Amino acid sequence: MAFYMIGERINGMFNDIGEAVAKFDPKPIQDWAKKQDEAGAAYLDINVGPTAVDRVKSMRWMCELVTEVSDTPIALDSTNYDAIEAGLEVCKPGALINSCPAERAKIERVFPMAKKYNAKIIALTMDKSGIPKSADMRVGFAMELVASADEFGLAPDDLFIDPLILPCNVAQDHAPEVLEALRQIRLLSDPAPHTTLGLSNVSQGTPFRPLINRIYCVMAMTCGLDSAIMDVNDDELVDAIASADMLLNEAIYCDSYAKVFRNR
Amino acid sequence: MAFYMIGERINGMFNDIGEAVAKFDPKPIQDWAKKQDEAGAAYLDINVGPTAVDRVKSMRWMCELVTEVSDTPIALDSTNYDAIEAGLEVCKPGALINSCPAERAKIERVFPMAKKYNAKIIALTMDKSGIPKSADMRVGFAMELVASADEFGLAPDDLFIDPLILPCNVAQDHAPEVLEALRQIRLLSDPAPHTTLGLSNVSQGTPFRPLINRIYCVMAMTCGLDSAIMDVNDDELVDAIASADMLLNEAIYCDSYAKVFRNR
Repeated sequence: MAFYMIGERINGMFNDIGEAVAKFDPKPIQDWAKKQDEAGAAYLDINVGPTAVDRVKSMRWMCELVTEVSDTPIALDSTNYDAIEAGLEVCKPGALINSCPAERAKIERVFPMAKKYNAKIIALTMDKSGIPKSADMRVGFAMELVASADEFGLAPDDLFIDPLILPCNVAQDHAPEVLEALRQIRLLSDPAPHTTLGLSNVSQGTPFRPLINRIYCVMAMTCGLDSAIMDVNDDELVDAIASADMLLNEAIYCDSYAKVFRNR
Repeated sequence: MAFYMIGERINGMFNDIGEAVAKFDPKPIQDWAKKQDEAGAAYLDINVGPTAVDRVKSMRWMCELVTEVSDTPIALDSTNYDAIEAGLEVCKPGALINSCPAERAKIERVFPMAKKYNAKIIALTMDKSGIPKSADMRVGFAMELVASADEFGLAPDDLFIDPLILPCNVAQDHAPEVLEALRQIRLLSDPAPHTTLGLSNVSQGTPFRPLINRIYCVMAMTCGLDSAIMDVNDDELVDAIASADMLLNEAIYCDSYAKVFRNR
């Protein structure tokens, strides 16, 4: 099991990227692509954010910018599937569609698109009724998603299943349920689906965001998590992930193991 | 599940304590008792170390010193069971015997002594042939120890079972086996036995000791670990433990959760 760090930073929710999207200024976008690459990102998430006038056009433009300066695959982050498809047309192979819930109409739109463009999918354990609390319900949605992958000619590990962590200050009881869901999801199929989390959600609204992010990430890795959408430039978080990866015996110990992890 | 921090510092292996033991100087011993109490220690480990001329006499003396300044129960740490019994005679109730392996002769000496003095036992998943590698073998020894507790009239949670972590730079493959053993040991009985680790062992000889200690502790807690023999004055380690405890939903979230954890 390798661990895939998905860099969260090229997102119009951040002020510098939001301004860049509004003004079609390439520099902040390309700078963050390079900066996250240097930190060891396996994917670069791209989300046009709230300042985009035309989400389809902005997504295509941002993907082109990033592919100019980076060979790292892109995670196309949008609820607008036309924007995702516009991005897929200009991306290098191996992109990641972020995301698709366990809803039939969306599965029918997204899964064939993934097949056509040789992309993988972040698949969410929720449907129209929202995010369930129990691990069992989350695993139930994961089973539906794995079955859908098979139906549309995708492999189980074309999915990165996201059991959806919520902020611990408002939904603390979800945190252990998500851990149990992760433990069960990796037993659903062989090969197992990948799993992922929008890690920064767990600490939303708390005064100790980096601490809670890195502790929960280590706990989730212990239960099988093998990727996260995260701040790849948070050195303490990456050190924590590299240490957990080594202590799970997934990477051979050497005194420079944290450096080796970043350079994989 | 509460988490019990066992303070490791009153040990003659440390130079200041070693000197204090050699000279019968009470101050460093009593200072470390108070300092570890303030950090939230649930037990204070006492090990006479290599400078003691008479281990029985030194253990009794050290226990008396600590009980003068602290109400925190003592973990009597010795391979000399006469020294442990001398300490038990002067300790307050609720002491912890550290330790007993899965060897019949030692069980017959230690378990009745625990019953007599109303003490608990750190029980090691090893016998004369040494520390096994696999989780299964560790769990097998744990089963023998739980059965022995029943035989001698002790409850399963009178045991703190230690699956024995080794340094990750020489026995890296043990690290995930110990995690799996912890996961299974808490399923052995109801109530479950407690579990513990000599946490600092995992990072022995590495250049990143505090980082590796706290990451492995969080991983082990995710698998059910509920105590550790550790540096309770390592603030980053205690913050990590408090965060994991909260994220397991064992302590209610509040903005001062790390402070609340220390003051329990």
